[in-house]
Amino acid sequence: MTINILFAAKANRWPQYEAPLTKALNAAGVSGFNLSTDIAPQDVDYIVLAPNGPVQDFAPYTRCKAVLNLWAGVEDVVSNPTLTQPLARMVDHGLTQGMVEWVTAHVLRHHLGIDAHINGQDGVWRVDTPPLAEDRPVTILGLGALGTACARALVSLGFDVTGWSRSPKDVPGVRCLNGDAGLRAALESAQILVLLLPKTPETEDLVNAQRLAQLPKGAFIVNPGRGPLIDDSALLEALDSGHIAHATLDVFRVEPLPPDHPYWAHPSVTVTPHAASDTREGTAAQVIAENIRRSQAGEPLLHLVDRDLGY
Amino acid sequence: MTINILFAAKANRWPQYEAPLTKALNAAGVSGFNLSTDIAPQDVDYIVLAPNGPVQDFAPYTRCKAVLNLWAGVEDVVSNPTLTQPLARMVDHGLTQGMVEWVTAHVLRHHLGIDAHINGQDGVWRVDTPPLAEDRPVTILGLGALGTACARALVSLGFDVTGWSRSPKDVPGVRCLNGDAGLRAALESAQILVLLLPKTPETEDLVNAQRLAQLPKGAFIVNPGRGPLIDDSALLEALDSGHIAHATLDVFRVEPLPPDHPYWAHPSVTVTPHAASDTREGTAAQVIAENIRRSQAGEPLLHLVDRDLGY
Repeated sequence: MTINILFAAKANRWPQYEAPLTKALNAAGVSGFNLSTDIAPQDVDYIVLAPNGPVQDFAPYTRCKAVLNLWAGVEDVVSNPTLTQPLARMVDHGLTQGMVEWVTAHVLRHHLGIDAHINGQDGVWRVDTPPLAEDRPVTILGLGALGTACARALVSLGFDVTGWSRSPKDVPGVRCLNGDAGLRAALESAQILVLLLPKTPETEDLVNAQRLAQLPKGAFIVNPGRGPLIDDSALLEALDSGHIAHATLDVFRVEPLPPDHPYWAHPSVTVTPHAASDTREGTAAQVIAENIRRSQAGEPLLHLVDRDLGY
Repeated sequence: MTINILFAAKANRWPQYEAPLTKALNAAGVSGFNLSTDIAPQDVDYIVLAPNGPVQDFAPYTRCKAVLNLWAGVEDVVSNPTLTQPLARMVDHGLTQGMVEWVTAHVLRHHLGIDAHINGQDGVWRVDTPPLAEDRPVTILGLGALGTACARALVSLGFDVTGWSRSPKDVPGVRCLNGDAGLRAALESAQILVLLLPKTPETEDLVNAQRLAQLPKGAFIVNPGRGPLIDDSALLEALDSGHIAHATLDVFRVEPLPPDHPYWAHPSVTVTPHAASDTREGTAAQVIAENIRRSQAGEPLLHLVDRDLGY
């Protein structure tokens, strides 16, 4: 019997994904599949989903065994009341690796003060020796797949890394904290703060005026996680006062960030266009194909979302 | 009998080094030493040397058992005809670690195109997904202590790393090449080229017009090694033609780089003020003290310079 796989993302994604998904499904040994952007809802076995795509009402998909998200973030779908099917997040090697590269690059950039060199090509030889990474405390909020991978990379470069998560975690070489008391300690030591929490009702505006004040003066903020983790007004105030030295922000409440948003013009903010990490078709297709193979074989799905936790 | 240790560097170094060296010598168990900037040459047992310091003629130091260099580079002392004493290079954890951080930072910066974000805060949301590190070939010329440490760090971040050295080397995860044929192959694949060769007669102007032409179009050059490794006129031409996309240069034939040098004003050059790595007093003092302990105990010196090879 044909396995009907609906590809439900914006139209421009289909040419990117058709060949990699077909290849990955064949490589995974899934046989007799029909991969298409146009299948009658009642005939669909699996939905490959971008949350900003055409499927917003899951009720008609009565035969659907699983919704396989193309994105790491599921906040735009997990609370959809029509979704009764199992939902799997994307945990993609390419996405994780891209995030590790972006986070490591910007942590090193702020650690070494590279902007001053890039912007200071004025003929003046200014000697300054930055501290070694072992003397630079970096805190990562969020120790999921992405936060943990970034923490490991920073530890291997020698940084003094603290990680904070909702529930207790253990990552070798990382000072792992959790809970409210842990959050305060994680912030108080953070010369560079990296935000990699999921967006949930608990994490919205987590980085507010009070918590910004708990960071040491001159701290750097790097946010490749989710825009709503930050209270934007509070951050702008902390940047204006100099309490926060610089913020490098990749994610925003509204994307693309509107041209008149104060972040663009602020001298202590670097806006990057949600470029920290992007799902790569080749590696993401393998994750989707493996989950379809598992489902067909009666094996548990990888990266299943806990609907109560929201991630 | 007193062990006379002459500290021979510029005057401003003595206040930085006196306490760390004293502490390290005591910690190493060297007893009965006299550490000073002023000892009669015929009484000196060891010279702690900065090559730009007061000692340029080693002939009067007839009792001296070893010259312990404070710098990694020995090119300014190894060819000194008056030097007959054993010479040890500095291989300092702080220096190596600082170099790894600087090289990793600038390789990631060019890999991800971060300058375009830092300089492009104009309200325009430009989405671009860089390749993953595994699809970015980086070549390091020089696989000494510094080159090998940088190669290992880049491999651990996922980069596709080639290393080239005069004599054959083997570094796990690195495609190790050597000799003339190896150099050509190392250059032809290098989207990012890192120079960490010592300065010797053979390496001067190694990166000349011919070898720049062997790099792929759009390559980046990162030079934290030695200024004379590059033929400056040839590099400026290759930058003007666009064959080389950008050069980040930390070392120069004349330092500080004169304000009117064309590197400062070139839009595709980042000058940094010999900041890639600096010997750290605390860790360097331990290396010096350990070598004095070894010499006193009749054990072989660490990091002894081969006078024929020049490093």
